[in-house]
Amino acid sequence: MVMKIDLNCDMGESFGVYTLGQDELILPYITSANIACGFHAGDPQVMARTVHLAAQAGVAIGAHVSYPDLVGFGRRDMNLSVDELESAVLYQLGALAAFTKSEGVELVHVKPHGALYNRAAVDEQYAAAIARAVSRFSRSLILVGLAGSKLVEIGRSQGLVTVNEGFPDRAYLPNGQLMPRNQDRAVLSDPQKVSDNALALALHGIEARINEKVDHITIDTLCLHGDNHSAVENARQVRQKLLDNGFSLASLVKN
Amino acid sequence: MVMKIDLNCDMGESFGVYTLGQDELILPYITSANIACGFHAGDPQVMARTVHLAAQAGVAIGAHVSYPDLVGFGRRDMNLSVDELESAVLYQLGALAAFTKSEGVELVHVKPHGALYNRAAVDEQYAAAIARAVSRFSRSLILVGLAGSKLVEIGRSQGLVTVNEGFPDRAYLPNGQLMPRNQDRAVLSDPQKVSDNALALALHGIEARINEKVDHITIDTLCLHGDNHSAVENARQVRQKLLDNGFSLASLVKN
Amino acid sequence: MVMKIDLNCDMGESFGVYTLGQDELILPYITSANIACGFHAGDPQVMARTVHLAAQAGVAIGAHVSYPDLVGFGRRDMNLSVDELESAVLYQLGALAAFTKSEGVELVHVKPHGALYNRAAVDEQYAAAIARAVSRFSRSLILVGLAGSKLVEIGRSQGLVTVNEGFPDRAYLPNGQLMPRNQDRAVLSDPQKVSDNALALALHGIEARINEKVDHITIDTLCLHGDNHSAVENARQVRQKLLDNGFSLASLVKN
Amino acid sequence: MVMKIDLNCDMGESFGVYTLGQDELILPYITSANIACGFHAGDPQVMARTVHLAAQAGVAIGAHVSYPDLVGFGRRDMNLSVDELESAVLYQLGALAAFTKSEGVELVHVKPHGALYNRAAVDEQYAAAIARAVSRFSRSLILVGLAGSKLVEIGRSQGLVTVNEGFPDRAYLPNGQLMPRNQDRAVLSDPQKVSDNALALALHGIEARINEKVDHITIDTLCLHGDNHSAVENARQVRQKLLDNGFSLASLVKN
Repeated sequence: MVMKIDLNCDMGESFGVYTLGQDELILPYITSANIACGFHAGDPQVMARTVHLAAQAGVAIGAHVSYPDLVGFGRRDMNLSVDELESAVLYQLGALAAFTKSEGVELVHVKPHGALYNRAAVDEQYAAAIARAVSRFSRSLILVGLAGSKLVEIGRSQGLVTVNEGFPDRAYLPNGQLMPRNQDRAVLSDPQKVSDNALALALHGIEARINEKVDHITIDTLCLHGDNHSAVENARQVRQKLLDNGFSLASLVKN
Repeated sequence: MVMKIDLNCDMGESFGVYTLGQDELILPYITSANIACGFHAGDPQVMARTVHLAAQAGVAIGAHVSYPDLVGFGRRDMNLSVDELESAVLYQLGALAAFTKSEGVELVHVKPHGALYNRAAVDEQYAAAIARAVSRFSRSLILVGLAGSKLVEIGRSQGLVTVNEGFPDRAYLPNGQLMPRNQDRAVLSDPQKVSDNALALALHGIEARINEKVDHITIDTLCLHGDNHSAVENARQVRQKLLDNGFSLASLVKN
Repeated sequence: MVMKIDLNCDMGESFGVYTLGQDELILPYITSANIACGFHAGDPQVMARTVHLAAQAGVAIGAHVSYPDLVGFGRRDMNLSVDELESAVLYQLGALAAFTKSEGVELVHVKPHGALYNRAAVDEQYAAAIARAVSRFSRSLILVGLAGSKLVEIGRSQGLVTVNEGFPDRAYLPNGQLMPRNQDRAVLSDPQKVSDNALALALHGIEARINEKVDHITIDTLCLHGDNHSAVENARQVRQKLLDNGFSLASLVKN
Repeated sequence: MVMKIDLNCDMGESFGVYTLGQDELILPYITSANIACGFHAGDPQVMARTVHLAAQAGVAIGAHVSYPDLVGFGRRDMNLSVDELESAVLYQLGALAAFTKSEGVELVHVKPHGALYNRAAVDEQYAAAIARAVSRFSRSLILVGLAGSKLVEIGRSQGLVTVNEGFPDRAYLPNGQLMPRNQDRAVLSDPQKVSDNALALALHGIEARINEKVDHITIDTLCLHGDNHSAVENARQVRQKLLDNGFSLASLVKN
């Protein structure tokens, strides 16, 4: 039996003179990069550089699509119409794909960012609009969503390849949902605990107990964060722990 | 002998609640649409609608790339670095191509807008940056520039297919350049004169007399404007005049 | 007994090359102009021109503050933090006040626009944040809100002068709320009916029947819309009807 | 004889999640803060916080007005019309003044940023447009410009209080202009040299030798940069050196 898992990280979130994240230090540890497309972060220059770096590192590239909200970094929910959302996702997919095309690599996946990620996890109309945009752009793009979310469910029902994402630096509730950030111990920062969590997610997925029923949700990709102090060390230890336990790390396209 | 000419018009320049131009009324008369990509005008919804309309009308679609300046409508020169310019063009090409791809049609050409068009006509570094962006995106994209401009010259020297654009509603100076807009009779509005001018440009191109030397510049595409009162009538009469005089109208891809 | 009422209209909603509304045609009929501040519409040039026009016409000027959403024209709800909202309102108040100051007139009132208007009518935290921003800028600014809304209630409780706005081109439900736009007969367009409605609102205000209780809400200002075909005729007839029935028209500052 | 000088620093250049500069560490050493107004940097929240910090520190507050170019950080020249420029400056003055008003402090000065600073130093029409905007906003605002620039000259001729700015971390040419950044030794980083330069500028101003003529230009304010590694140490040593040599440090309003 071959055990495979993908490690992804959000990248290309600098903007103009502003730098954010530690893309070059994280790239050696991951297999997929979700690159900002200019709506919550990133600008054409940053996108060009980040796509180049990821391509050079052999890391698979995906579009990190967002609400149009630079000052809010895409973290504030916005009430777009489903048509506006569908067009906004298409626009961002194309913009990023220009840079992958120019580097001679494929655009592999797409993942909503921030408030859009959370909304698409529970809002069926939003999930369907994103899935439609992806379908219209390319049916070989892989759609990444929160494990067990509406986005994954609806994307799959529309015939897309969808994958479940897990968060090794977050605690999960017994019902399989993420513990809200404002609760104690919702966010893990100790690299040891994060890598233990990563291994558990990779091996066992998530158990979602609702009433008497238990759902097992397989995790296909683990999200590493790049914007905190222990980010690089977390990435290093998560990778090592997975390799030590027999996992091979591979981007989604190779699964 | 077959005489062919392309008729192009700038389109998709609405934004949000704001509408501009008469795209649906002009489309029946033209063979190429230059569609705004969100930098000087257009938004993802407007782009989706405009690409759909053009595709339905069988009109070839090109990217109307610009400086990032919504409030100035791309009409104010900006001092981007050549790297910024190259990335900005790539970004816009990709963004628009997402919509052509989704409609199942090709992106055929690219034309700089407004202040960037004028700058690229004379600034070799800008012309080269645009040509590089086009080359990186697709060597089968056709680059449209002012007849006799640096953009056309440098695009061609980089191996791109380039075409010379003429303006039937503008007067030309003896040296082959456009008469500046602030001069009397620089802009023609009478549909009869505009269509006469269109025919003359299509038949004879432009004569550029510099010192003793006369350069003949062939015109491959004629630009019709869509944002003034006589726009539709101009388009109708130009088209008819060209057909009446034996021209066949064809987009650049079919030349 | 003197019967007074204010007639207000949203203005300055053009942007760059895009024009919207018929400000110059409406100004002769109204007493207050709500001028966009660059967040949903308007740009510094448009603001300068609109403030100048309103000042010349002797019309009182207010700030039409909005979410930062040009492409959505401020019509899409956004989940700003209350601190972000408070700062955004302050910013817009100041920006517009620079133009009133430069014209030698006062900034008289403030009214939220679009989605923010609707949110502030029901969301106490948003209402309080707007009221705080107004208080911090000037306690003599008059706060305009939907008649009977949280914004008016909370603004008043914070010691601000608040006024109730009514919509003569909209139908009201028995509970005193606006009939949703998507219902039949929610929006009136016949100038005769609009002016009848205006008079009724000016004379009797709104009756809000909730259970057995009936609340009478006085209307202080009537909103005329400037962006539809019958806008000018509506404004003319509303004004005439009110004058014919003994009302004097006066901006809020003169009440 | 009392020797006074102002020490100014650009501040409030963060944006959304992006942080830039070390405002809190620099504030103790300076007497004037030039605060970004949202056009090249800053957002309403950042402006609120920065104005609050400066007011708490007793530092005089000025508006750091810019071209509208967030992604370029206001460092790229843009060809605004003079009317657009005048309105853009007014808009920014007002926006920032809302925050100073809300803190109960005065807006003391205004200084163009980046590419606009350089353009206004040599372009008479731009200098005049900025001076007009300042005059329209408040004739007691102090206009800060490059020592010996058109901005200072024209502002003064329009009756504004203008001050000459010097750069202790930059080398000057014999003609009194700044040595271009791309030349060796154009930028000083050693705090010892920077503070020596600061003292020399404060004591002797700049000598501008043009042909046989020597102009002596008094320096009224010294610009400290806040965005490099040695920024805090530079600020500390410049301040100390000036105090040790008998200068009192005072904001422009107190001169």
